[in-house]
Amino acid sequence: MMSMEEGIISICQQAKAASSLLAKASTPQKNDALLAMSHMLSRRKGGIARENRRDMKKAKERGLRKSLIDRLLFDEERIMSRVSALEHIAALPDPVGNMSPVRQMPSGLRVAKMRVPLGVIAMIYEARPHVTVNAGAFSLKSGTAAILRGGSEAANTNLLLGSLWREALEEVGLPQSAIQVLPPSGHEAVEFLLKQSEYIDLVIPRGGKELIKTVAEKSTIPVIKHYQGICHVYVDDRANLEHALNISLNSKLLMPEVCNAMETLLIAEGIAPSFLPQVVESFHKEGVELKGCDRAREIVPELIPATEEDWSTEYLDKILSIKVVKDVDEAIAHIATYGSQHTDAIVTEDYSRINRFLREVDSAVVLVNASTMFDDGEELGLGAEVGISTERMHARGPMGLEELTSYKWLVWGEGQVKT
Amino acid sequence: MMSMEEGIISICQQAKAASSLLAKASTPQKNDALLAMSHMLSRRKGGIARENRRDMKKAKERGLRKSLIDRLLFDEERIMSRVSALEHIAALPDPVGNMSPVRQMPSGLRVAKMRVPLGVIAMIYEARPHVTVNAGAFSLKSGTAAILRGGSEAANTNLLLGSLWREALEEVGLPQSAIQVLPPSGHEAVEFLLKQSEYIDLVIPRGGKELIKTVAEKSTIPVIKHYQGICHVYVDDRANLEHALNISLNSKLLMPEVCNAMETLLIAEGIAPSFLPQVVESFHKEGVELKGCDRAREIVPELIPATEEDWSTEYLDKILSIKVVKDVDEAIAHIATYGSQHTDAIVTEDYSRINRFLREVDSAVVLVNASTMFDDGEELGLGAEVGISTERMHARGPMGLEELTSYKWLVWGEGQVKT
Repeated sequence: MMSMEEGIISICQQAKAASSLLAKASTPQKNDALLAMSHMLSRRKGGIARENRRDMKKAKERGLRKSLIDRLLFDEERIMSRVSALEHIAALPDPVGNMSPVRQMPSGLRVAKMRVPLGVIAMIYEARPHVTVNAGAFSLKSGTAAILRGGSEAANTNLLLGSLWREALEEVGLPQSAIQVLPPSGHEAVEFLLKQSEYIDLVIPRGGKELIKTVAEKSTIPVIKHYQGICHVYVDDRANLEHALNISLNSKLLMPEVCNAMETLLIAEGIAPSFLPQVVESFHKEGVELKGCDRAREIVPELIPATEEDWSTEYLDKILSIKVVKDVDEAIAHIATYGSQHTDAIVTEDYSRINRFLREVDSAVVLVNASTMFDDGEELGLGAEVGISTERMHARGPMGLEELTSYKWLVWGEGQVKT
Repeated sequence: MMSMEEGIISICQQAKAASSLLAKASTPQKNDALLAMSHMLSRRKGGIARENRRDMKKAKERGLRKSLIDRLLFDEERIMSRVSALEHIAALPDPVGNMSPVRQMPSGLRVAKMRVPLGVIAMIYEARPHVTVNAGAFSLKSGTAAILRGGSEAANTNLLLGSLWREALEEVGLPQSAIQVLPPSGHEAVEFLLKQSEYIDLVIPRGGKELIKTVAEKSTIPVIKHYQGICHVYVDDRANLEHALNISLNSKLLMPEVCNAMETLLIAEGIAPSFLPQVVESFHKEGVELKGCDRAREIVPELIPATEEDWSTEYLDKILSIKVVKDVDEAIAHIATYGSQHTDAIVTEDYSRINRFLREVDSAVVLVNASTMFDDGEELGLGAEVGISTERMHARGPMGLEELTSYKWLVWGEGQVKT
């Protein structure tokens, strides 16, 4: 019987071995594996949904919180959305082997950078069985082996998905260990996994703040966090107010539970008296709980008083804090103090204020006259996204296939030596 | 009196505050600071060399190893080479604010990526006072604040250079805390610094293997390692042998002490009988100690027998191990087993073997018919280099100014909301 440590080392070694084969796999072969998985999900959606119902039942019995149970659901509808996601990823261009323009250097050497796979990725995540499909698909397409460790609450669903991945990989002649789904295990196993920098090149944690923090602290492997988004829309006094209203509503309401949803609305004092009552009415109609600063409450007294804490809270819910600010300077300063450098938007027609906002707001995605919902890999031209990075290193904002690769330098000479 | 922890937090906070101002500094202002430092080094080289002699004296008294003492030397000649380095960095283009092409998306949004400063970098290094000049200059030019922690052996030299940086920054109206040189301090202080991920965005350790390993293990901040290079030249049986000899000699001898110097020479068995005696003679003339595998020793019996350990040893010295291999396959397999994915070269005229070597050798820099000495930021078109990264994430191989930056996404809309 293997010890926990031996088991993990063995998984890592298999992933590493698979990664060398996967790095050489052709684009059609990788796409065939994605499509094989897609067919398998479609054909066996009944069985997958049944495993998921077992997980759901246990989760309810264990009294897990509602938001977690929502994310755990993987019914036939959600399975079918992964079927199309896999087809979409198969249709995207393969980033591996892409070359930068070749430059001729003064030495006569020709030099280029070529995209290569990262190697081995470990994903540590909670609930959401769809990550088992997505993360597997993204790493496979980018030529990287994946070790997927989901939460114990989704164990039955994830283990079945893991065996489907093995089948799909085998069907096209790729190594089954290219995508490995770990069985549920204790914290010690995860901590031990996070020290295997010899085998694993990147760790991506997905889930609550605590999970992400713990992974970042324990890992000796590079980590790309997908952390919280305290996102702002600033409505300037030179805004087109129809745009401002639409953008505010869309930024909050399209998907209140995602990281790039607006959490705080900043309104310039010059238009607050006219705009604020209008925006309050629209949000109240949609059942949004509104909190306001003192100046906002002078205009609309029924707003709940916002506390200092509200400005740095990621509600991920139909709750919004509203602050009246003097001008774009105060808006930029507020975002610098309370924001999380994730996604922030300005609504204005003023050229200079647009440029200042774009330059001075230090967020991964800064938008002008557009909803924060556009912070999305597909909308920004990456084809699809595996997540939104809150790092400054390697990849910032939405991560597509290319962001999951590394590169190497190629140099062609004709006998050159250096003097 | 501040505690160690309070002292470090205060340094970090000053760096963070300086980084926001530095991020907004204009290119001419940053260049002026670089040139002010350059003039100051030139004017005060006598005083700097004097402080360095104090460090050298102490180091000799403490019996430090010769290689460390060599790296510690910062005499007038080395100071003057930093004077030109600063002028060179001032003349390079500023990466901050550079924009990718703007793409028009189906939504009508226009989207681009803009280079922005990383924030705050901490550099942990041994000896080599020239790092205090270089690392400061690179981070300044790339708009990032630097915390520089050199070894205690260079304390006097580094503290003087730190005060010159403060003068240079003040002279042009930039915050003095943009480049902070830490006084010598215990390991606890460094370990505490490596936990300040709230303030520091990147840690770069420079020095021996042990230092780099410790920093990588203790840090909760992203680390870019500049680790060891076990670099190979493979001479194929279809090589131009004049090229092969020149490239072998240059790769070993130009600077045997640097990470991209060749450590192992691989020779195809087809040409070993003619090429090996020739290469042995040339290397022996240059005083290089040569170790060989059994097959090499059959051809040239006076070679020292190479042990298994030799193939994974970074000599950084006039020592070379030589192995006879069957063909390009065995060369690629040897490099995969013993190499460090740093810099590897093939010498051949065979088109297919070139392509295989470029594709299959998974190193940061892979060269064809050129010396490994060309793994250098300037030679590869980066203008200059702060070092050679052995990471797969963020930056691989030589790092120039752009590799010290991050980016943000800019999005221009006209009222778009997402459906």
